[in-house]
Amino acid sequence: MILRDMGEATVRAALSAVLGILLIAGCDCSQRFKYEIKEFQVPLDHFSFLINATFNIRYLYNDSFVDKSNARTPIFFYTGNEGDIELFAQNTGFLWEQAERQRALVIFAEHRYYGKSLPFGSSTFNTSLPEHLAYFTVEQTLEDYAMLITFLRNDRQMPVVAFGGSYGGMLAAWFRMKYPHLVTGALAASAPVLQFPGITDCDIFYRIVTSVFQNAYNENCTLNIGKSWKLFETLGASEAGKKQISDAFHLCNVLKTDDDLKKFLDYVEEVYSNLAMVNYPYNSSFLAPLPAYPVRQVCYYLKELHSTDADLLHAMSSALAVYTNYTQSAKCLDISVNSNADDSGWNIQSCNQMVMPICSNGSETMFRTSSWNFKDYAEKCYKNYRLTPKPYDIILRYGGRNLEAATNIIFSNGLLDPWSGGGVLQAPNDKVFVIILPEGAHHLDLRHSDPADPPSVRDARDKEAAIIARWIQDF
Amino acid sequence: MILRDMGEATVRAALSAVLGILLIAGCDCSQRFKYEIKEFQVPLDHFSFLINATFNIRYLYNDSFVDKSNARTPIFFYTGNEGDIELFAQNTGFLWEQAERQRALVIFAEHRYYGKSLPFGSSTFNTSLPEHLAYFTVEQTLEDYAMLITFLRNDRQMPVVAFGGSYGGMLAAWFRMKYPHLVTGALAASAPVLQFPGITDCDIFYRIVTSVFQNAYNENCTLNIGKSWKLFETLGASEAGKKQISDAFHLCNVLKTDDDLKKFLDYVEEVYSNLAMVNYPYNSSFLAPLPAYPVRQVCYYLKELHSTDADLLHAMSSALAVYTNYTQSAKCLDISVNSNADDSGWNIQSCNQMVMPICSNGSETMFRTSSWNFKDYAEKCYKNYRLTPKPYDIILRYGGRNLEAATNIIFSNGLLDPWSGGGVLQAPNDKVFVIILPEGAHHLDLRHSDPADPPSVRDARDKEAAIIARWIQDF
Repeated sequence: MILRDMGEATVRAALSAVLGILLIAGCDCSQRFKYEIKEFQVPLDHFSFLINATFNIRYLYNDSFVDKSNARTPIFFYTGNEGDIELFAQNTGFLWEQAERQRALVIFAEHRYYGKSLPFGSSTFNTSLPEHLAYFTVEQTLEDYAMLITFLRNDRQMPVVAFGGSYGGMLAAWFRMKYPHLVTGALAASAPVLQFPGITDCDIFYRIVTSVFQNAYNENCTLNIGKSWKLFETLGASEAGKKQISDAFHLCNVLKTDDDLKKFLDYVEEVYSNLAMVNYPYNSSFLAPLPAYPVRQVCYYLKELHSTDADLLHAMSSALAVYTNYTQSAKCLDISVNSNADDSGWNIQSCNQMVMPICSNGSETMFRTSSWNFKDYAEKCYKNYRLTPKPYDIILRYGGRNLEAATNIIFSNGLLDPWSGGGVLQAPNDKVFVIILPEGAHHLDLRHSDPADPPSVRDARDKEAAIIARWIQDF
Repeated sequence: MILRDMGEATVRAALSAVLGILLIAGCDCSQRFKYEIKEFQVPLDHFSFLINATFNIRYLYNDSFVDKSNARTPIFFYTGNEGDIELFAQNTGFLWEQAERQRALVIFAEHRYYGKSLPFGSSTFNTSLPEHLAYFTVEQTLEDYAMLITFLRNDRQMPVVAFGGSYGGMLAAWFRMKYPHLVTGALAASAPVLQFPGITDCDIFYRIVTSVFQNAYNENCTLNIGKSWKLFETLGASEAGKKQISDAFHLCNVLKTDDDLKKFLDYVEEVYSNLAMVNYPYNSSFLAPLPAYPVRQVCYYLKELHSTDADLLHAMSSALAVYTNYTQSAKCLDISVNSNADDSGWNIQSCNQMVMPICSNGSETMFRTSSWNFKDYAEKCYKNYRLTPKPYDIILRYGGRNLEAATNIIFSNGLLDPWSGGGVLQAPNDKVFVIILPEGAHHLDLRHSDPADPPSVRDARDKEAAIIARWIQDF
């Protein structure tokens, strides 16, 4: 039974961990950056000669910086990832700042099957129609981008720099590797291209999250969180205890079944991961409205070692509210709001190619123990989507740790980012640049500059800007 | 009418020109080289998550040179092209000679849809089942090879060198470009990777053939051939004239219709192209049993400028017989034997991705005038196979002339080879090697060494061997 539970936990973790990036995220409504929204027709299936269907992907377009007299205008091309492209446009200020400096055309391309780039409209994710999901792959997406760039260049010699963060960073790096004739260079920020089976330890993600929480305020933070699982388990065994937890966390729906309890625990675990990712030095609203350095705030509420269950429960509730209700606008906590429309997208990619193992050794992290069990994972994928994951697809195509032939890619990683464990931290040659941000969370360097930025992110951006300028100059 | 005819001619030329390599070719029965024949299971469709079918490709295996104590044994991997893989194994002596020297494992992989690697057995080419043809692409083939190499290496650090000639050379080069983590380097012999729309003049192929014939014996050769088209046309207009042609060339089936005549002329044109390709310095049997320097022999029969039609016809017949009946075993000339089972293969590839324009300006070549007309070409493809060619697929994916990012590829080209016009003749950087064989025909350097080899091919092989040795050493 335990094993099965661990399997389930692992499945959940891996399915939703990257997804976590977008939880609760809607568009940043401040609309700091402006653009036209355009559409581009792409083949549904670039690779067979059977399917002739096409559909439109969206892209955002801004030529306000362009020097029209320059025939070699650079294109800064964001390789859209798992979400509405407008979200990424508003949260990738570095691209905009550099575009102004380089007088570049700004393009943010929306990833197929996300946002409004749905090949089958509202029935795209109808799992009883597996042919709708069949073309939802990295390779098809890169081809979309290759065609869009070819169209935008229109035979002109324009240097293209790909930008991307997280999964978008993986796409940017792979795009440069596979289409170097179209992309002069790529900035792959916080891109866990190594978080794949057999080439990275599956427990590294949770170890980094734990380390972030350990260093945020004092060590009682992780001790309290570590203790809390046992408490939840004990309390959760009875109906009264479930009620006690529900009350303490102001849940909208009282926990009734063991499955409800499990969902609550998964939710809490995910919040910790998200907090580590967006542990930015200023208020932000990428995943949720949050204060500066939110992990520090969370751990502030957990600074005392609590001796009674009630105290611990109360402290945990306050801590969690930093993430779940920073604006104090929520009347209760709805743990089902783990999802927006784009959940469906990443869950599917996790079940075809993006098999990124996550596990936890409970004695070394503040998390529950969970093992990586591909069999359980694959069964769940088949049950949910009739998809059989191909765990080695990505390594076969993009090389895993064998990146010796790669050129003109910047891999940047913040050491406070749990995804840095699957990032490229050592350059395979002198044409690939590795930039480490000791004080950086998840693709902090891609964000707009802010007075609160730590020195390491300023340095990183300066280095990145210089490398990008050189690529354009050398083109 | 002329335009339409030109269109037809172009369609034929482009559809069959590469195919010409294999015309009349069976396996070289001398069996100079030995191997085991093995099978390897591959997915029918590597790129979608809808099709779960698999099938087996064949590969040839020889480990007789391997030093079993060497954990880093090199693999010499021939990226099979359009034909039975045994044919290529017997005609790629250079690979065998170098494998012995480097103590390499020898693998010849058969291209899907050729030889015995048919995904749907005997119904593979049933054109009323277009889903059978849908997965017959370069990308699927490269994935087959990537999986086979991964299987053969079995997690061991073994340097892989890809070898290929002609279309196989294109595959070898593209394989290195796209899977550099699996392939240390590639020898792409006579690989016309630039023979695609818009990046190479379509008339270069026939101009080179003409030049080869011009320089083979004396200039009357091309003058006679140039004159012959008019003669065939004039004679062919009447039934008696068709009979006269049929008799002169000992045709098995007398030409009756204008379509018969057209087929005959297409056949003759193709023979000239094939002769230029296999204009080897010694007897060979790659496309047909042939003497050394067969073009010289052909032109020997055309050394006089003939004043009467009968004389010219007679001389042409003798000339053609060098190719069609060198062994003098044929009782008559069967112009329908332009095809073995593998015709169907290349014709289909020409109609999906391998759109390689060929045309001729009649005043500058010894050939009839023909223009490149994609519309006609595409219509014929649709009519024959319900396929709509994608003429820019290959350039989009493999970069056309933008090869700056390529590394560890040798592009070798013989200047007597009509395909050299679409070859890489200038190195884009110092990690790509261009080797020119002024006296070389179609991938002569890939063949076994022979006392009759001209100095330029010996030099080329020495250079290639040194580069390959360095790749292995640097691995």
